[in-house]
Amino acid sequence: MASCTRKDNVSVNVNLTTTSLLSRFLVLFIVSSIASASHFTGGIALDDAKTRKNGLFPEILRDEAVARLKELGKVTDAEGYLERTFLSPASARAGDLIRSWMEEAGLRTWVDQIGNIHGRVEGMNASAEALLIGSHLDTVIDAGIYDGALGIICAVSALKVLKSTGKLGKLSRPVEVIAFSDEEGVRFQSTFLGSAAISGILPITALQISDRSGVTVQNVLKENSFEATKESLLQIKYDPQSVWGYIEVHIEQGPVLESLGLPLGVVKGIAGQTRLKVTVRGSQGHAGTVPMSMRQDPMAASAELIVLLESLCKHPENFISYDGHCNGFTAESLVCTVGEISTWPSASNVIPGEVNFTVDLRAIDDMARESVLFELANQIYQTCDRRSVSCVIEP
Amino acid sequence: MASCTRKDNVSVNVNLTTTSLLSRFLVLFIVSSIASASHFTGGIALDDAKTRKNGLFPEILRDEAVARLKELGKVTDAEGYLERTFLSPASARAGDLIRSWMEEAGLRTWVDQIGNIHGRVEGMNASAEALLIGSHLDTVIDAGIYDGALGIICAVSALKVLKSTGKLGKLSRPVEVIAFSDEEGVRFQSTFLGSAAISGILPITALQISDRSGVTVQNVLKENSFEATKESLLQIKYDPQSVWGYIEVHIEQGPVLESLGLPLGVVKGIAGQTRLKVTVRGSQGHAGTVPMSMRQDPMAASAELIVLLESLCKHPENFISYDGHCNGFTAESLVCTVGEISTWPSASNVIPGEVNFTVDLRAIDDMARESVLFELANQIYQTCDRRSVSCVIEP
Repeated sequence: MASCTRKDNVSVNVNLTTTSLLSRFLVLFIVSSIASASHFTGGIALDDAKTRKNGLFPEILRDEAVARLKELGKVTDAEGYLERTFLSPASARAGDLIRSWMEEAGLRTWVDQIGNIHGRVEGMNASAEALLIGSHLDTVIDAGIYDGALGIICAVSALKVLKSTGKLGKLSRPVEVIAFSDEEGVRFQSTFLGSAAISGILPITALQISDRSGVTVQNVLKENSFEATKESLLQIKYDPQSVWGYIEVHIEQGPVLESLGLPLGVVKGIAGQTRLKVTVRGSQGHAGTVPMSMRQDPMAASAELIVLLESLCKHPENFISYDGHCNGFTAESLVCTVGEISTWPSASNVIPGEVNFTVDLRAIDDMARESVLFELANQIYQTCDRRSVSCVIEP
Repeated sequence: MASCTRKDNVSVNVNLTTTSLLSRFLVLFIVSSIASASHFTGGIALDDAKTRKNGLFPEILRDEAVARLKELGKVTDAEGYLERTFLSPASARAGDLIRSWMEEAGLRTWVDQIGNIHGRVEGMNASAEALLIGSHLDTVIDAGIYDGALGIICAVSALKVLKSTGKLGKLSRPVEVIAFSDEEGVRFQSTFLGSAAISGILPITALQISDRSGVTVQNVLKENSFEATKESLLQIKYDPQSVWGYIEVHIEQGPVLESLGLPLGVVKGIAGQTRLKVTVRGSQGHAGTVPMSMRQDPMAASAELIVLLESLCKHPENFISYDGHCNGFTAESLVCTVGEISTWPSASNVIPGEVNFTVDLRAIDDMARESVLFELANQIYQTCDRRSVSCVIEP
């Protein structure tokens, strides 16, 4: 349900004041959503004075939430950095902690058969569609403390405030917080085990996925006293008819909001992604004896292609003529990255015979991404022709 | 004495007709040099008819020379490809073969204390300064058959012709062919053991250099019945006063002569070489969440620097204003190569935090090379400043 996440470099670097402010506003956003969903109050004001007047408890939504983020950030399987993988000892301890916070907030809690932690309040109509709020409790290796944890703690804190004000029992529909057991997929290289099971899209074959030491998902589930059968997995699924909506608060894993001074952004879509492997083959030669004018150098060609890729993704309007189909396409949503590159034979005194590099291209608008890809391929082949090197683009 | 050489890719690919022609003309060049040095005859004509009239024996200078190149090319330590390293079994067999050809050409032969094979004719004045002709009998791994061997075989064939025509005893000064035992440095990573000893610049510490298995140069010399002492090494040195000149015929290890249709080129100088390691550090980030406009991407920066490097070396006149000091500087002698590049952390979905690449820069004119280097460094730092990445250039 969450998009694939990585270490939140930006957030761990912001100062405490900024962080507290950010957390507070994110929590206010959750409270606002719940309030709106539950029709128990009117508009939510966001300035401090009004916040207090409305009984939004900054000591819970701000101070305690930040303290809990720090506390959860210390629950780790590793020495000196944060790492919690699917059903690891630290994940079990983190689950217990989250469950205790959920119970303190007045929620009924349980753990499902894939290790997701649930906390639910039924409100005034237990049979109404439920609002789900959640995020993941597992982390990447050497993770930031906000990645996943923020979405869980914000939700619990918001419900704790509603309990404090006596409004928790008056909600017009059930609200359920879920801390997902696996989103990062660090151990089994299979992301979203937790949310996929709840969505009913986790294939039964997932039980047989092995980690590096040959231990399967099924083994790990059984070690942790879960049934780990086809039936137990199927029971995890939520009927879509029983769910009113889902909200996830997540740390931004980029620099945009911070640089713009905005406390909150709303996700408009999930970017489609294309990964390419580009192979450029030229004429391998002695670095000292082949004159510049006679080279078919795949490294120089690759460098030109990477500069071209950057230009295309920074200013697609200079390369692509827009038509009606690409209305939704904006340059801001388009990102292109070369993360890996290698030469062959990789010696400082040899003109390479071959260079390989990766291209990661993402855009929210699929048709726009396709047209950039098409233009990119065109430009690559033209450049390679001009340089008399051979280029192969593989998805 | 020879410049550092590598596998002669070009030559092994040329057809037999071209090769034979090339070899013949190179041999004629040697004969011409000897003739000129020895004042025994007038000008040497290079066309076929005159060649025959002058008794230059194409069957020796062309056909036998090519056959010997092929024969020597089969003397290898490896299965399926050519490899002869310093004092290896194949090198010993190659030395015996060369020595037998030298003797057949009327030369007195011996092996010195570092394994160089010598063949000498004293001519009419044994005390005159000698003309040395030579090349190396060792090879790189998977070598071409011309690299080194050509210079030895040409010289022997030329002297064989002089013997056939009865002119060998009438030379006005000694002529000596030397097949050097080590030029490539494959085994001990220390090039020019053979010619350095003859020049008297081989340090005595060279005896203690080890190969990968811990065997030293001294061990190998002793195994091959050489004395391997300080005294034995010092005795190899030739007094500069005893040497009139040195000629080496070598296969071109680049494509220029072949592309120009020229059978022969004369080396004007040895290119000075600068090797740099460039480190570009930027801001590591998630490939999906950092907008193009906010990136400090060291990969895109490196690509721009590599394109810049290529432009600078292809067209230095666009970057550097010439003055009196750079008169000798021509674009043809300047070559720049990026042979190795790597990113960190090297994942396709991560904007790298750091990129490292090598630069190999060579030019015959040292001052010109220095001015290109200076301009390159300037341009690199300007580009890095503009892109807000940090760049470090290390020699």
